[in-house]
Amino acid sequence: MRLRDLATPCLVLDRGILARNIRIMAADVAGHGIALRPHMKTAKCIEVACMTLDAGAKGITVSTLAEAEYFARAGLRDMIYAVGITPQKLDRVAALNVIGANVAVITDDPEAARAIAAHPAPVRALVEVDSGEHRGGMAAADARLLAVADALGPCLAGVMTHAGHSYAGRTADEMAVVAEAERVAITAAAERLRAAGHTVGVVSMGSSPTARHARHLDGVTELRAGVYMFGDLFQAGIHTHGLDDIAVTVLASVIGRRVAEHHILVDAGGLALSKDRSTAAGPVDYGFGLLLTAEGKPGYGRATVVNAYQEHGVVALDPAQPFPPLAIGGLVRIAPNHACMTAAAHDRYYIVDGGDEIVSVWDRVNGW
Amino acid sequence: MRLRDLATPCLVLDRGILARNIRIMAADVAGHGIALRPHMKTAKCIEVACMTLDAGAKGITVSTLAEAEYFARAGLRDMIYAVGITPQKLDRVAALNVIGANVAVITDDPEAARAIAAHPAPVRALVEVDSGEHRGGMAAADARLLAVADALGPCLAGVMTHAGHSYAGRTADEMAVVAEAERVAITAAAERLRAAGHTVGVVSMGSSPTARHARHLDGVTELRAGVYMFGDLFQAGIHTHGLDDIAVTVLASVIGRRVAEHHILVDAGGLALSKDRSTAAGPVDYGFGLLLTAEGKPGYGRATVVNAYQEHGVVALDPAQPFPPLAIGGLVRIAPNHACMTAAAHDRYYIVDGGDEIVSVWDRVNGW
Repeated sequence: MRLRDLATPCLVLDRGILARNIRIMAADVAGHGIALRPHMKTAKCIEVACMTLDAGAKGITVSTLAEAEYFARAGLRDMIYAVGITPQKLDRVAALNVIGANVAVITDDPEAARAIAAHPAPVRALVEVDSGEHRGGMAAADARLLAVADALGPCLAGVMTHAGHSYAGRTADEMAVVAEAERVAITAAAERLRAAGHTVGVVSMGSSPTARHARHLDGVTELRAGVYMFGDLFQAGIHTHGLDDIAVTVLASVIGRRVAEHHILVDAGGLALSKDRSTAAGPVDYGFGLLLTAEGKPGYGRATVVNAYQEHGVVALDPAQPFPPLAIGGLVRIAPNHACMTAAAHDRYYIVDGGDEIVSVWDRVNGW
Repeated sequence: MRLRDLATPCLVLDRGILARNIRIMAADVAGHGIALRPHMKTAKCIEVACMTLDAGAKGITVSTLAEAEYFARAGLRDMIYAVGITPQKLDRVAALNVIGANVAVITDDPEAARAIAAHPAPVRALVEVDSGEHRGGMAAADARLLAVADALGPCLAGVMTHAGHSYAGRTADEMAVVAEAERVAITAAAERLRAAGHTVGVVSMGSSPTARHARHLDGVTELRAGVYMFGDLFQAGIHTHGLDDIAVTVLASVIGRRVAEHHILVDAGGLALSKDRSTAAGPVDYGFGLLLTAEGKPGYGRATVVNAYQEHGVVALDPAQPFPPLAIGGLVRIAPNHACMTAAAHDRYYIVDGGDEIVSVWDRVNGW
């Protein structure tokens, strides 16, 4: 089967680029002498998880209990569910641990910590620390840090943070500053708990940009990152990787030609691409995605999806280029703004390896 | 089963509000003496389709071939697949017609029209007309209108348009103006084709706002609309319906409390809510959604999801209200910005009927 045999829109994943991205990050993190715990929120796919483990990763990170259950069924054990736990969700986590998995949860709330400690089946927990993003977690100096650790008691497994505000950085130097702030925050939290008599095994931090740009990671035991595997236009914009390192694209068909407006319509709209507009805040605004050739290569200049209706993508062609010889039904590919969101719109990956042959089909685990 | 027994995030659909929305639109369109062909792109659900048909709808509209196949398997026959067809997709349409369905396609392209006419199994087609949105279709006066109709030959079933730019309207009067422009465009196209000797059976137009606000629909044979069934914050903002007419909400759990920032975190982020920001252009910006009580009622003032990470929604609470007594794990509901996009993130509806009891579970058909 070849790309032209697929029903569009669909998700194409280039195994060679994926393998290269995985190898580079594994080497970067190994260079710091710590463990990499890849975040599977982007790929949500056992084949991808296995590639990261083969490259040396130690355990994985998940963003939903559906992921935890899917990966546990596939035999993976060591996981962190990196979204603040609720007492109501503990039974699902404990059920996985009973059958051999080892899923840790995170919390920043004393009451939730008490619920974790009181659960009949033991669940390991990390205290969530805020290193500047102000989403989840508390500051290392917050009085509740000790309260949460005390409430967890023997369930306390360590500390974790995510410097999501690294995405506001635009240069390697700016990222390095955020990475260092993230490291300082999480190691300070670990030291504070140790000084209070707690054992803190895991000191976990990370995002793809801070993973790539951290100067050193002293005191950290593991790094979490996910989007680096696939890459996307936003990550390319902030120099986490290059434009030709984007492994995942949406295959689409031309469904309209508006020569006067220098537009084409494609059958990948807001559902197939997502409505994510993260590059709007980046150095280059790619709208809802960048038009590539059917081979996944540049070929249309700066042609971007400027409008994403539910099933229609409106591509503004590059004004410096002639109207392309694309008939209705012609194939194109679209590089995603934000790979995590775009991939989540699809239930499978069609795997290519540089060419147009579909060498495999890999499933995703969506939902919750 | 009750709402508190569900794993969050998930989609809750209130059957009573849904039934009322369906009844009101059916009466509106019947008042014009024409047929309603509901667009199933929002609901993607056989139970909802059957409710519209029970209320008098004539056939349905679909936005994907996956929908067409799903509804055909359920026994529905009369459909329009209202996204520009490609030659490659005709086999799937024809296969449905062979087993008894009657799926019409749309096109604005002479070459695609020739492919439709040349297909071994006859497929009815509507010519897509641009009534001002400048997405798909051509102007009624465009020379290609006749070329496409000529190429279709006996496959020509009629004309259709979608005035999606009605969404730019803000008052009933502005909507009425757009609706009239839509009507004028589509009836002009029909008359032009008739003057050239073509038989034009179907004259189809519509969106939920133009359906609600059109003053008269002379010359039109059917109206298409979809989002009205569920409603959302954007449609409420442009007065297609009221805020208490929103039938679909996302059930979420509190996963973080940031008292100092007057924020809570919920486990419905960009994947559960979608990253759609349509209300940013509306009269009231609801961010990524409006916080409601677990019962789906107002109760937190103007508390909106101001940031949507993949699995984290950041709710900025109403500054005029005290921090709500919501513990970690506390249930809330979130009214969606754009129901079509939010619903598409979920694979099923948990049906309630005014209360918190789950009276049924209905599936959706996602993907392509």
